[in-house]
Amino acid sequence: MASRVSVVYLFSVMFFMLTLLSFDTEAKVHFHKWKVNYQTWAPDCVEVNIISINGQYPGPTIRATEGDTIVVEIENLMPTENVVIHWHGIRQIGTPWNDGTASISQCAIYSGETYVYKFVVDRPGTYFYHGHYGLQRSAGFYGSLIVDAAGKEPFTYDGELSIILNDWWHDSTYEQAVGLSSNPFVWVGEPQSLLIDGRGQYNCSTTSHSCNATNKQCSPYVLPVRSGNTYRLRIASVASLSAINFVIQGHKMNVVEADGHYVEPVEIDDLDVYSGESYSVLITNREPSQNYWAGVNVRGRQPKTPTGLAILNYLPNPSTKLPIAPYPTSPLWNDYAYSKALAMKFVALKGHEELPPLQSHRQLILLNAQNKINGYIKWAINNISLLPPLTPYLAAMKYKIKGAYDITPPPDIYSPRDYNITIPPPNPNTVEGSGVYVFTLNSVVDVILQNANTLTANNSEIHPWHLHGHDFWILGYGDCVFDPAKDPLNYNTVNPPLRNTVAVFPYGWTAIRFKADNPGVWAFHCHLEAHFFMGMGVVFAEGVEKVGKLPNVAMGCGLTKNMIDMHH
Amino acid sequence: MASRVSVVYLFSVMFFMLTLLSFDTEAKVHFHKWKVNYQTWAPDCVEVNIISINGQYPGPTIRATEGDTIVVEIENLMPTENVVIHWHGIRQIGTPWNDGTASISQCAIYSGETYVYKFVVDRPGTYFYHGHYGLQRSAGFYGSLIVDAAGKEPFTYDGELSIILNDWWHDSTYEQAVGLSSNPFVWVGEPQSLLIDGRGQYNCSTTSHSCNATNKQCSPYVLPVRSGNTYRLRIASVASLSAINFVIQGHKMNVVEADGHYVEPVEIDDLDVYSGESYSVLITNREPSQNYWAGVNVRGRQPKTPTGLAILNYLPNPSTKLPIAPYPTSPLWNDYAYSKALAMKFVALKGHEELPPLQSHRQLILLNAQNKINGYIKWAINNISLLPPLTPYLAAMKYKIKGAYDITPPPDIYSPRDYNITIPPPNPNTVEGSGVYVFTLNSVVDVILQNANTLTANNSEIHPWHLHGHDFWILGYGDCVFDPAKDPLNYNTVNPPLRNTVAVFPYGWTAIRFKADNPGVWAFHCHLEAHFFMGMGVVFAEGVEKVGKLPNVAMGCGLTKNMIDMHH
Repeated sequence: MASRVSVVYLFSVMFFMLTLLSFDTEAKVHFHKWKVNYQTWAPDCVEVNIISINGQYPGPTIRATEGDTIVVEIENLMPTENVVIHWHGIRQIGTPWNDGTASISQCAIYSGETYVYKFVVDRPGTYFYHGHYGLQRSAGFYGSLIVDAAGKEPFTYDGELSIILNDWWHDSTYEQAVGLSSNPFVWVGEPQSLLIDGRGQYNCSTTSHSCNATNKQCSPYVLPVRSGNTYRLRIASVASLSAINFVIQGHKMNVVEADGHYVEPVEIDDLDVYSGESYSVLITNREPSQNYWAGVNVRGRQPKTPTGLAILNYLPNPSTKLPIAPYPTSPLWNDYAYSKALAMKFVALKGHEELPPLQSHRQLILLNAQNKINGYIKWAINNISLLPPLTPYLAAMKYKIKGAYDITPPPDIYSPRDYNITIPPPNPNTVEGSGVYVFTLNSVVDVILQNANTLTANNSEIHPWHLHGHDFWILGYGDCVFDPAKDPLNYNTVNPPLRNTVAVFPYGWTAIRFKADNPGVWAFHCHLEAHFFMGMGVVFAEGVEKVGKLPNVAMGCGLTKNMIDMHH
Repeated sequence: MASRVSVVYLFSVMFFMLTLLSFDTEAKVHFHKWKVNYQTWAPDCVEVNIISINGQYPGPTIRATEGDTIVVEIENLMPTENVVIHWHGIRQIGTPWNDGTASISQCAIYSGETYVYKFVVDRPGTYFYHGHYGLQRSAGFYGSLIVDAAGKEPFTYDGELSIILNDWWHDSTYEQAVGLSSNPFVWVGEPQSLLIDGRGQYNCSTTSHSCNATNKQCSPYVLPVRSGNTYRLRIASVASLSAINFVIQGHKMNVVEADGHYVEPVEIDDLDVYSGESYSVLITNREPSQNYWAGVNVRGRQPKTPTGLAILNYLPNPSTKLPIAPYPTSPLWNDYAYSKALAMKFVALKGHEELPPLQSHRQLILLNAQNKINGYIKWAINNISLLPPLTPYLAAMKYKIKGAYDITPPPDIYSPRDYNITIPPPNPNTVEGSGVYVFTLNSVVDVILQNANTLTANNSEIHPWHLHGHDFWILGYGDCVFDPAKDPLNYNTVNPPLRNTVAVFPYGWTAIRFKADNPGVWAFHCHLEAHFFMGMGVVFAEGVEKVGKLPNVAMGCGLTKNMIDMHH
């Protein structure tokens, strides 16, 4: 027995050494130690309870270079609440248990416990992280994750600034959750504020909440620049609901990166950022004797939220020197033609294209419909509203735990095929489910997201869909009902952008393609917090049998408890 | 192998049949199915988020007869938060894993999961249940548990009314937890309201919160009675902080039961109810043409909270007919002599005494001191502030899991022995710990709770201490420092009351005795929610090797995860 142990040990050491050798000698390990806890904060001057990291809001920025390893030790200090953190845009190749999605990749980190996320950031880009459990992202639980290129990038700049956009409510996420789960349904409503890097300014005179306009936590975010320089602005959105349009007064922006991939430069006046997306834009200098507003407005929903503001501060002007022009405005909220035209402008940068396979092995057509279950309002995909199971899919599938999720996969294509997407669901009744789309490892999958009318007549909404564990090519967007015979003929297979998040526009469709080449179980879902909470997502899996041993600390919930051996 | 399984099965069936036979044939099983979730509620007219059961607040009342079995299936519907429920006053003989104390008897019930509590209520009495995890009890998570006597009781009455007393804050328990864990420390402060059966009346004109004085949820609780009858009022307190004095205008009360044990009848004008205590009082009729106020006031702390009110409604008067007299008043808040005299009046009812063993095998003297750890304010017992471990003690001790808790037991007696209890701690520095007092099974243990000065000069507070898994005899109360040589000579061993909760008064001591005859691990702690949260408790264990197999569903946190067998 002793000799067997020694052999195992020897192999472990050898494997560890090989692991070290397999990395570039310059690859670094970045260690972060985070304490997660409640915190009183005033993001828009109104005091609320948020979930903070190390007492900061937004959370600390992680910065690394492609090929580096990130190690984040999370200690959950909340007295009764669990957490996970999803590393949005990181594919977690070889570490699917560290994707940070409760019910899918792991059991949430139990109150009081410590979990160590460890993963490689294999591609440069603008990423971020956030809670992926209940409505915790909406409680302010997020931050930036920036991966620098190891080599030269296809553009140059003199300085860099990074901001995360968000929308903000004064009701607690607990209250929001009650409303969303109630019959009659209580919608979260439009946000009270828009935040730029966690800062907004609510009009204190209009609220009964504790509100202090001079609280430093809600002073406008300052972007310091110097005339004559070019800046890379990294912009991401963790919005719970809103499509956010970003404008800098008197400055054009040149979009050069989207979701970690270079795009053909697009010069624009304003940028639609859907929740889950990230962009890099280059801005160049203007008349430097004044400061300028950077502003955000709601698009895609009738706006009831004032413009969120930050200050582009041309040094040596003081940051307190307020810009003279009026607040930045955005295109009409319902000018969807404008939004679609902009979305279609983003294509892979010439010379940096990674081309998609020309054919797919499987095609899913996913109808995005609002619907009801016993009177409770839900979102459903192909008439199934996702009910995340108690046992994480990854453990359930790897260890073949019976009864953990619906064994019948959801339908690849919605029915009836003549479903009328222009009216509220004629049969307003859906079901909950937890089935999985299982793909052959390394197969090519097309997904067409088909939008439809909600339960309200003449209403269809933008949904930004985010895929975990993969990037996908956006093959095309279209209006009305996707035609499997004709529409693929117009797919862009020449320079489609690789993304991890894409919008499906009202009454339209969006087609994507990806390689199912990352063993694991992966969420694909609408990135609007309330929509996912209401069931708007599906689960993909491939090659689970190739996934390594799951860490014990990722288990302990649902049926994984039945794996507790009492005779230890 | 097959035959071995059959034999095991046969034994199981036999054991099950024996179990059935061992109960009185009239013993019943009461099955309850509870859904736990957040809920918007206005206990004192101010709308807040509470933790509710089946949408009710307070939770549903459990009613059974001694010898019955209670089965409560708890489904935790909170999206990210775990729960447990402690069955306060039920000794859980043979079912220590169902005591419902996070970190001690079980892992808290994971968000989304279902746990079935099953236990026998072996003694009649007035009990209750509540959350025992973080500050969840303070979030409104509690209800009544009444066990009727199978036979005749030593008093008669015509009707029965049951109420739970509580104090109430508008800040969420999340905000309260942040403050208590912060440096500088933010105290929860005095309660905004006192509640009688979950109802109080805050003055809406003085708050910026959403407050509606006509909300039915906060209309005064109505106690309907008829003239000429005697009523048994069952009164319990789940207060987070306050010592609550209960008065009924113009009515004397005759105390006949305390914590499930009959006491010599004591006629009183008002009743101090410390958090964790329960009483039955008999009231008889008054002039029935009017209604009367039942009122509660804070004692033991300088009151800043208005009187809480209910209406003793003499039918057929309408319940809306307001009493004519002024609100009930209570004795001076700091008249501790009054409080102590009342506490000492409660002795075992003649003919119903269960006498304590005359000698104990072990004596603990536990100093109750406020103190600091690295500047953070804590409560410490014998200079150790209890830090509940991640792995429940019961599993850790039964399965001999290494490293789960401090293996060194805390000291039996505080040091230095000449500690000055009349001044703030001279060396304001304590340590956190998780050691256990392990008792020989069936040994007799004395505990002397020794009160002391807090960190504030000239301040010592009342602490109601609650013991899980046992009742104890109150042997005596005294002022100043307990003298082990002399004070035991004055112990009451003739008719000491059996209780599960007892107060230790400012600058005084309280002596209790109990038999360590219930295999399991048991909390003994100050029942004030914020005090226990700040470390004011100890852990007792006896006969853990005799405890049966723990249910898997009670595990899955801390080091019990290491018992997950990956090769299933």
